[in-house]
Amino acid sequence: MIGTVTLNLALDVTYEVDQVVLGGSHRVDAIRQRAGGKGVNVARVASTLGHQVLVLGFVGGVTGELVAEELFDAGLTALLTPIAGETRRTVAIVNGADGDATIFNEAGPSVTSDEWRAFLDRMPWGRLGVLACSGSLPPGLPADAYAELAVRARHHDVLTVIDTGGDALTAAAKAGAVVRSNAAELRDALGDTTVEEGARQLVQLGATAAVITDGSRGMVAASHKGVWRALPVEKVSGNPTGAGDACTAVVAAAVAEAPEPDWTVVLKSAVAASAAAVLTPVAGDIDLGAYRRWQPQVAVN
Amino acid sequence: MIGTVTLNLALDVTYEVDQVVLGGSHRVDAIRQRAGGKGVNVARVASTLGHQVLVLGFVGGVTGELVAEELFDAGLTALLTPIAGETRRTVAIVNGADGDATIFNEAGPSVTSDEWRAFLDRMPWGRLGVLACSGSLPPGLPADAYAELAVRARHHDVLTVIDTGGDALTAAAKAGAVVRSNAAELRDALGDTTVEEGARQLVQLGATAAVITDGSRGMVAASHKGVWRALPVEKVSGNPTGAGDACTAVVAAAVAEAPEPDWTVVLKSAVAASAAAVLTPVAGDIDLGAYRRWQPQVAVN
Repeated sequence: MIGTVTLNLALDVTYEVDQVVLGGSHRVDAIRQRAGGKGVNVARVASTLGHQVLVLGFVGGVTGELVAEELFDAGLTALLTPIAGETRRTVAIVNGADGDATIFNEAGPSVTSDEWRAFLDRMPWGRLGVLACSGSLPPGLPADAYAELAVRARHHDVLTVIDTGGDALTAAAKAGAVVRSNAAELRDALGDTTVEEGARQLVQLGATAAVITDGSRGMVAASHKGVWRALPVEKVSGNPTGAGDACTAVVAAAVAEAPEPDWTVVLKSAVAASAAAVLTPVAGDIDLGAYRRWQPQVAVN
Repeated sequence: MIGTVTLNLALDVTYEVDQVVLGGSHRVDAIRQRAGGKGVNVARVASTLGHQVLVLGFVGGVTGELVAEELFDAGLTALLTPIAGETRRTVAIVNGADGDATIFNEAGPSVTSDEWRAFLDRMPWGRLGVLACSGSLPPGLPADAYAELAVRARHHDVLTVIDTGGDALTAAAKAGAVVRSNAAELRDALGDTTVEEGARQLVQLGATAAVITDGSRGMVAASHKGVWRALPVEKVSGNPTGAGDACTAVVAAAVAEAPEPDWTVVLKSAVAASAAAVLTPVAGDIDLGAYRRWQPQVAVN
């Protein structure tokens, strides 16, 4: 089973409006609400691809209840740790005229050290094939929270996939995780470097592997066996939010099946899944038909 | 006690944002949530002016729970009828740069005829000095819902103050209520007329009295004893939302004390309260100091 960690869970609320006018008053034509946060997107894509998932995170207040309800309704098993704070919401206003979204993100609630301890204590290590950790940390958590999870996971022979940036990225590499990031965050963490060289450096720091998305230039993977670049299939246009999470879902699923997978095969699936995620309007969804069509076509050097 | 009826209760959510950019992603700097709807504004103003109030309306789902909680926290007694639907939210995005608000209103939930019956059956007539009804009707309710309330109230010797427009305004007048409206809605209901003449017509239709706000030209009251116009105190600028509700609160309080009050005195208080409401950024609040300073200064013809 793929455990996905979302330390900053949210209720994503989408309002569809005929035509947004700043300073105006609008009737909301349609409302959608679903659980959100990068780890939830990873869980949705992994579930769509046929893998068993377990959503892990914190919930609090009535918004937390709505998040738990929606995960249940979506068929995603969840193990949620209650907190005193209220789960955050994000509100996306979608303009009917052009489909453009204007997004408002509430700050997440603080997590106390006791709540973090409770989260760690209830990790069902025996049931996990891999643990995928994605997204920002809520206030109150230690900066090395992901690295701590990776060390504990290793103690239970569970591999971690960690999608992050900055110092947390190098810390995750040093903790032996499979690290996921994008080219901009890689350079934030390591300074000016090619994506291939940066990925190699993360492996030298201790990462089991590194998988870096490189926008329209494709995707790079590195392990102690080598470095590979996959080229994008074709130009796709749509909503890029969630494309990186689709990549993380594929990487986590591969690592759950074999700790040292054939990274050239993983890259093909990851590129196809990311492109198939761009085709759908909502982060966490992928176009399964496009994924299956593209997967064999991806070229890897 | 002043009962205030809000058939379309809402949770008003306010997001403060540094600078709103259409199509952008924003961090919400501050969140405020409170119970909303015109009748709730009436209750807040009446309570601020020292009157006992009872908020009456429908609540459903987790948003309904938040509305009930906030009313309790605000010290407003409430008698709320549960419904199967989810209470609506409104989201106001306030731009930090200029204080301008962009508002998104969810449609209200439908109310079934059984829920409407339950609402009517639990009206605590014996405890009410007056019943103030304000705002739009949720889908599912009969168009003559306010008139039905007025007829039932009269049966229990309770006067009603009804703030509405269109056909509901003439129906409320025929049911013998004290009617509240503004100049535009008055003309919608009666055709092209002066405010004084329109107010007189409403009394001829059966209204106990009519109090019509006329924007920067002040306010007009009519009863079978005459017609009066109050002039505004001074030019006030601010947020006009809730100014009409402050007027309704004053009218309801006056009618609760004496079924046939001295309308020239009521008009002075109503004009002062409306202006004092404009001074505050949030509907339902009034600047009590300004109210007390202006009340003796209002000129009535």
